[in-house]
Amino acid sequence: MSLRNLSINLATVCQQYTMGQAVDACLAKGITAIAPWRDQVQATGLAEAAEIVRSNKLRVTGLCRGGMFPAADKDGLAAAIDDNKRAIDEAVALQADCLVMVVGGLPKHSRNIGSAREMVADGLAAILPHARANRMPLAIEPLHPMYAADRACINTLEQALDVCDLLGDGVGVAIDVYHVWWDPKLHAQIARAGAGGRILAHHICDWLVPTRDLLLDRGMMGDGIIDMRSIRSAIEKSGYDGPQEVEIFSAEDWWKRPGEEVLATCIERFLSTCTL
Amino acid sequence: MSLRNLSINLATVCQQYTMGQAVDACLAKGITAIAPWRDQVQATGLAEAAEIVRSNKLRVTGLCRGGMFPAADKDGLAAAIDDNKRAIDEAVALQADCLVMVVGGLPKHSRNIGSAREMVADGLAAILPHARANRMPLAIEPLHPMYAADRACINTLEQALDVCDLLGDGVGVAIDVYHVWWDPKLHAQIARAGAGGRILAHHICDWLVPTRDLLLDRGMMGDGIIDMRSIRSAIEKSGYDGPQEVEIFSAEDWWKRPGEEVLATCIERFLSTCTL
Repeated sequence: MSLRNLSINLATVCQQYTMGQAVDACLAKGITAIAPWRDQVQATGLAEAAEIVRSNKLRVTGLCRGGMFPAADKDGLAAAIDDNKRAIDEAVALQADCLVMVVGGLPKHSRNIGSAREMVADGLAAILPHARANRMPLAIEPLHPMYAADRACINTLEQALDVCDLLGDGVGVAIDVYHVWWDPKLHAQIARAGAGGRILAHHICDWLVPTRDLLLDRGMMGDGIIDMRSIRSAIEKSGYDGPQEVEIFSAEDWWKRPGEEVLATCIERFLSTCTL
Repeated sequence: MSLRNLSINLATVCQQYTMGQAVDACLAKGITAIAPWRDQVQATGLAEAAEIVRSNKLRVTGLCRGGMFPAADKDGLAAAIDDNKRAIDEAVALQADCLVMVVGGLPKHSRNIGSAREMVADGLAAILPHARANRMPLAIEPLHPMYAADRACINTLEQALDVCDLLGDGVGVAIDVYHVWWDPKLHAQIARAGAGGRILAHHICDWLVPTRDLLLDRGMMGDGIIDMRSIRSAIEKSGYDGPQEVEIFSAEDWWKRPGEEVLATCIERFLSTCTL
């Protein structure tokens, strides 16, 4: 089977490699798609990072990340909008498929999630003209409800698609199985997303039982309880057959192993548990 | 203001008190409603626990807990059904308002959450005649999606109400703000629940930022980011004006403080942040 549809989100090996080293390690194993984070790009330098992508004919399945709109005051929101426009420019320079949006949680001292959600919609609307002008799709990533307070107040695929419907063209969703696997409406909403041409990315990893840390204890595909194939099948049936991007934050396990072992395991599990 | 609508779930002081001691401590502060767990009742003895309730004219806002239906085989499901019937009998003996149902997650080695959800519906249907015959309402508690794998595969109020609609009379919901505060459809579903007469309990505590443990790091009302009053207002508008039950699992904070301090704080925060 082909590795054409396997992408490595570079957070998966962020403790082992710089962007350049990660790309070399991926290419050595036949992986030709990646998704870097902005801090990794910045550490390499944007021009150098773009040259790495171009010279190696890499596919960039997404740049992580824009978003983080809700702010305690207008200056904060304006700064977030400026930063998101820069993120769009960086995604363009890297020829990324999309800019992944982790929209942000509650502003400090706020208990008003409804207001945070309005700020997110306003922030997305404010940057959308710049995204459209540069043909850079914005991929709203609904995050697991356990991150609603501090990372993203868009927490279900249904909610993300409602925002997409509100905003129109140029915006879609990144479906990360870690965030959505539990949702009783998942399959219906995947079908809705596919029908609307809204699926821009498909991220994979696994939910471990027990999960020991809210942020940094994601599992390798096959080590947890997510039915990867069932979700992939729904996504493909809905019309999206793009790459699956492995994104694992794992402070106590995968981040401590040699990068080569991590990548080899990603390949093995992608082929054995994620492809149809 | 009155403490009539304040109930203490005895898990909140489970490290400090037996059931009898907890009741004495509550009464000393003017609290006359409690919700015990089955292990606490068992440790006291059911007859003795019932006598504590009767002689002190306590309101029991719920017995925790029935549920845990999904099982790896038919014997397991049958055992769960038997145990739930015993839980109904215990709730009746304690004159509880309802039996709280934490429905269970995935069976061991399963990745099929759809199948687990079917087992839950089947299990509830199997015990419902016994619950109805004994006039003991079953309160399905939707649990936060971070517990979908190992505690409860009913994870939103909408999903719980869909199950209620399927089952008919004798079943409703326990709305715990910790589990549902993040839900973009929360207010609409509270209205639906109230209109259908389905609200059987209202549990309170707070979501801390950061949350350090998935299970045992719940906060005292006012210490986190949940808008307690906004949710209470929606619940009262929907037609439910029963007690708010404080349920805090807090291994590193409240479970380590003197029980009297915990109860005094519950009263203070109930009055200052939870009542309208």
